[in-house]
Amino acid sequence: MRRVPLAVLGAGRIGKMHVEALLSQVPEADVRAVCDPSIDLDWVRSLGIARAVQDPSLVFGDPEIEAVVVATPSTTHADLVIAAARAGKHIFCEKPLTFDLARAAEIRHERDQAGVILQVGFNRRFDPDIRDLRDRVRAGSIGSLETLEIVNRDPAFPNIEFMRTSGGIFFDFAIHDFDVARFVSGREIESVYSRGAALVDPRIREFGDVDSATTVLQLEGDILAVIINSRQSNCGYDQRVEALGSLGALAVDNRRTSAVIASSEQAILHGKPLENFQLRYRSAYVEELRGFCRSVIAGTPAEVGVDDVMAAIRAALAAQRSIAEERPVTIAEMREVAA
Amino acid sequence: MRRVPLAVLGAGRIGKMHVEALLSQVPEADVRAVCDPSIDLDWVRSLGIARAVQDPSLVFGDPEIEAVVVATPSTTHADLVIAAARAGKHIFCEKPLTFDLARAAEIRHERDQAGVILQVGFNRRFDPDIRDLRDRVRAGSIGSLETLEIVNRDPAFPNIEFMRTSGGIFFDFAIHDFDVARFVSGREIESVYSRGAALVDPRIREFGDVDSATTVLQLEGDILAVIINSRQSNCGYDQRVEALGSLGALAVDNRRTSAVIASSEQAILHGKPLENFQLRYRSAYVEELRGFCRSVIAGTPAEVGVDDVMAAIRAALAAQRSIAEERPVTIAEMREVAA
Amino acid sequence: MRRVPLAVLGAGRIGKMHVEALLSQVPEADVRAVCDPSIDLDWVRSLGIARAVQDPSLVFGDPEIEAVVVATPSTTHADLVIAAARAGKHIFCEKPLTFDLARAAEIRHERDQAGVILQVGFNRRFDPDIRDLRDRVRAGSIGSLETLEIVNRDPAFPNIEFMRTSGGIFFDFAIHDFDVARFVSGREIESVYSRGAALVDPRIREFGDVDSATTVLQLEGDILAVIINSRQSNCGYDQRVEALGSLGALAVDNRRTSAVIASSEQAILHGKPLENFQLRYRSAYVEELRGFCRSVIAGTPAEVGVDDVMAAIRAALAAQRSIAEERPVTIAEMREVAA
Amino acid sequence: MRRVPLAVLGAGRIGKMHVEALLSQVPEADVRAVCDPSIDLDWVRSLGIARAVQDPSLVFGDPEIEAVVVATPSTTHADLVIAAARAGKHIFCEKPLTFDLARAAEIRHERDQAGVILQVGFNRRFDPDIRDLRDRVRAGSIGSLETLEIVNRDPAFPNIEFMRTSGGIFFDFAIHDFDVARFVSGREIESVYSRGAALVDPRIREFGDVDSATTVLQLEGDILAVIINSRQSNCGYDQRVEALGSLGALAVDNRRTSAVIASSEQAILHGKPLENFQLRYRSAYVEELRGFCRSVIAGTPAEVGVDDVMAAIRAALAAQRSIAEERPVTIAEMREVAA
Repeated sequence: MRRVPLAVLGAGRIGKMHVEALLSQVPEADVRAVCDPSIDLDWVRSLGIARAVQDPSLVFGDPEIEAVVVATPSTTHADLVIAAARAGKHIFCEKPLTFDLARAAEIRHERDQAGVILQVGFNRRFDPDIRDLRDRVRAGSIGSLETLEIVNRDPAFPNIEFMRTSGGIFFDFAIHDFDVARFVSGREIESVYSRGAALVDPRIREFGDVDSATTVLQLEGDILAVIINSRQSNCGYDQRVEALGSLGALAVDNRRTSAVIASSEQAILHGKPLENFQLRYRSAYVEELRGFCRSVIAGTPAEVGVDDVMAAIRAALAAQRSIAEERPVTIAEMREVAA
Repeated sequence: MRRVPLAVLGAGRIGKMHVEALLSQVPEADVRAVCDPSIDLDWVRSLGIARAVQDPSLVFGDPEIEAVVVATPSTTHADLVIAAARAGKHIFCEKPLTFDLARAAEIRHERDQAGVILQVGFNRRFDPDIRDLRDRVRAGSIGSLETLEIVNRDPAFPNIEFMRTSGGIFFDFAIHDFDVARFVSGREIESVYSRGAALVDPRIREFGDVDSATTVLQLEGDILAVIINSRQSNCGYDQRVEALGSLGALAVDNRRTSAVIASSEQAILHGKPLENFQLRYRSAYVEELRGFCRSVIAGTPAEVGVDDVMAAIRAALAAQRSIAEERPVTIAEMREVAA
Repeated sequence: MRRVPLAVLGAGRIGKMHVEALLSQVPEADVRAVCDPSIDLDWVRSLGIARAVQDPSLVFGDPEIEAVVVATPSTTHADLVIAAARAGKHIFCEKPLTFDLARAAEIRHERDQAGVILQVGFNRRFDPDIRDLRDRVRAGSIGSLETLEIVNRDPAFPNIEFMRTSGGIFFDFAIHDFDVARFVSGREIESVYSRGAALVDPRIREFGDVDSATTVLQLEGDILAVIINSRQSNCGYDQRVEALGSLGALAVDNRRTSAVIASSEQAILHGKPLENFQLRYRSAYVEELRGFCRSVIAGTPAEVGVDDVMAAIRAALAAQRSIAEERPVTIAEMREVAA
Repeated sequence: MRRVPLAVLGAGRIGKMHVEALLSQVPEADVRAVCDPSIDLDWVRSLGIARAVQDPSLVFGDPEIEAVVVATPSTTHADLVIAAARAGKHIFCEKPLTFDLARAAEIRHERDQAGVILQVGFNRRFDPDIRDLRDRVRAGSIGSLETLEIVNRDPAFPNIEFMRTSGGIFFDFAIHDFDVARFVSGREIESVYSRGAALVDPRIREFGDVDSATTVLQLEGDILAVIINSRQSNCGYDQRVEALGSLGALAVDNRRTSAVIASSEQAILHGKPLENFQLRYRSAYVEELRGFCRSVIAGTPAEVGVDDVMAAIRAALAAQRSIAEERPVTIAEMREVAA
């Protein structure tokens, strides 16, 4: 089997996670270099990776490297992706890529000019449970899809400083759910109605954000998707998807930390949901990288790319406007915004 | 223990169910008469009930009867309730009582004039599971309530002729959910956003109805409730409530027909939800009648009455208008309608 | 439909439960009389039952009464059943009927002489879940049955005085499980190996009893049944049956008191098992009486009778001897005992 | 952190699994060599392991190698372990180590003479769920332990040729369960009663084996353990442990392949148990190796060693004799056997 010689840009929390996944669980990848301005050389050496560099141009200029995995801070994604495309590298870029429609269109143009593959880190698409649900929906096992329910709730409030620059609940968090709705249904979003509030920490109001939001997406073909988001569930990382159709229903339930059940005189206690996104989507992180490498090897388009990012951005923009104007906002309005 | 001498008006499907529940499971009731224009005398006698009459005025004129249970066709509820109140009888009336706000106000006036107790058949309030969830929410066990999810889906499409006169999905079906949202939260509804479609049988469009609807209620205090309704789930009678709060979550799951679990090479099969409202809400039907009798005996107000009906009607009217106008509709707008 | 005119003998806890079930949920029964030496006349009258008597001979002498339900103290069962048979009455007798094989054989003889129907209160056979499991096992849905697991654990230790006269854990408690093993498998017990201990209250050792026992039944056809009994689980009334077969498995799980699920930061709490035999086997108590009445109406043999009692007694005797002699004991040895 | 320089002996299915686990998930290990008579050099090189040898004496003679992982065919375990001990290497040896008590005693002697650490592959002890159950039992969370139930059933019948040399159901399969009973309870086995049959494939009778067995272990302190084994469940890899105590119960339920739940008009389908031991005990295989390396680094005894193997062998011998002689067999009798 041919392995894709690649470099990982960014060695923070997510970058390290990708490096370790690539080494141990992605036989299709050959990690040649890791790049980070404050690279930990010992860590790189201990993994047996040949090169540790600080400047991404060294990666882009290395003819042996065919692909890059971009896991740098969000604000650097777009520039690095464009530079990588111009260097002829295939690109896996962590979400969000960009929050800006015009910038996304520019990235798409660069990708097409360079003829490279660009996959974005909408990892839910590679979660085995969500993928199985989607495959069965598409295969007609519940007849025609009627309603989707997506619950995405973080266990505990993130750092307020992170929140300030996160892009807000819709760009940072619900963006996965907008993509899941499109992925499972195979339909485009037509309008967005969202209500939200700052229930956990009122300081986020200062930068126009909410920490709890409920969103109704009208999808093509009279399909509705309801999304329930919270930055703090206080009862674990709550990740559920349910698809209701004309002939039945399919649900992805929370995966549990433990299969131990404790019975006492007072109650029966079951294990909690897997605690965080690293644990819950461990397989998804591996599978998206494997999918990317397979696309590179086969020369096929990415399974999820910049068009999907643009659709999600439009939904996020519409959700923000819906909250501000207390009305459903059509995606068509958002296309005008982008023009 | 004092027992309440009462008569049941209406001996159709629901009327008979109430008579049998009163006789076998409501020790607080003393069923003296059943009234129905086409009364089945053998059935009444076999139950050991003293009187079977065809004309409700005979009930209203009987000084020994203190209370009536109204289970006649929907269109007759309001007239019978007013006549009963004028005769000084306490009244338990099946839902809907009325679909008309002015009529409801008139009923309220008559009730107050007569000084009688009037309880309506919003049976969910007496379901042990929903009541337990509500009691725990109110006791603060999940901190402050943030979001409610209510799923109410019928197993199979009702008769189209029934649908034509049912009042539509919001008055006939979702009205229970509007009441559950108020009951669990203890808050009033402020605005309603609803989307719906005729996905099962397009004929219902002819009379302006939908068979699938998703509704977002904005309640006081930044609480949101999402309601998912369908006239045909094709996977059983799907009755779920989930309350998400600042410190945890509470869910009422479907009760199952069977506790038998079958494992084969292909799958693990669990029992289906209880099949219909008679089975699912069997306890609720008994408990609401017991609650009514206890109110009569103690001389305390009904636990759920005409004000609750009016709140639910306003929500149903708002939902209808929301679908027609594709925008959230405030309850305040509906108060104007009623004026 | 013809209804069976019957009398209930014994109006203690179980007797009252049977009377109330017969009146409200057994349309095939016509309760004509209740007999108890310390009969509560008000209670009988409030139920609308015609006769309340203190002496069972008045019931036996009443030509209108076709059948009796025997729910008197255990020690009186055998005498009353024989008297009833001689009076030509069909008989439903609560368990145990008798603990003595010779006495059981005598009862069988009297039944045959009188040509009456005699059903015993092995209520598990009428539990909808256990019956469904058995029907599916018999229909071959798990291939050939290989192993049965039966868990029967009481929530809390009964009164020590009750224990003293109960007949011991095998006659009072596990006797149901011996019958379930025969019922589900359709096979006879060949040998019994039992281990037990007085773990909860050592005083029961004084009368040779144990409060915890694990028993292996060798059934015909190389089928094994494991029975786990405890007088005190301290985690609810634990009632489970599992059948493992060549093509799959079937389990009857505990039925829950509540379908409410509570999620907190610490755990996910599910509802406990139904709390006691009255709640867990409510349907079974109704269905066994309905089955008895149907047998009387149709003139067909009882679904569970004195032969089943004799088989269960033999298993209980074998279990006692197995514990005493620390070896498996064959049922054949017990037949000798009875001779 | 110091890493243990080690070699893996045996590169068959289990050996390869250990090598890959050591490389990717055991940071405490430094894999220096792999030894197998028919070693796949490309595979070794692709993993970046320095040495691939065919003769274990090269490993034993390498002073840099401190420890060996023995994953060769079962019949070679004892000789290799003794040779490794004599070479002063710490040893992790896959089960069974040996089926012979005298041989096990010899190994113990060699281990003590050499002063090396010897851990055996009773992997259940390192499964997070089983370990959690045991920790909670030991911490008293269910009061005093009364009864254990262990279900260990393979999905499908193994190859008959494998069966012929496997050592039989008790040595090859139930040996894990004997160890789990000792591990969870912290008590020694006193007697064994087992019943079994060749229900799946009668050919195994030719070599005195059974494919289905139910075993009752009497443990010290009046604790009972029931073990249910089958070589072919036909409904997945069924791996459950339940501990019943004086104050409650703890259960390890099957872990599922999928969290997708499908509801149709006919049933509700849940995901099956993880399909085989590699998937079910994936964490356990990693954790036992990490535990071994930690013992080597800290110089502490192995968490599970040759004494545990001897206890399990005695139980397996007793179970075999129990089936043959149809009686409970004490462990004391087995000690005589070994003498």
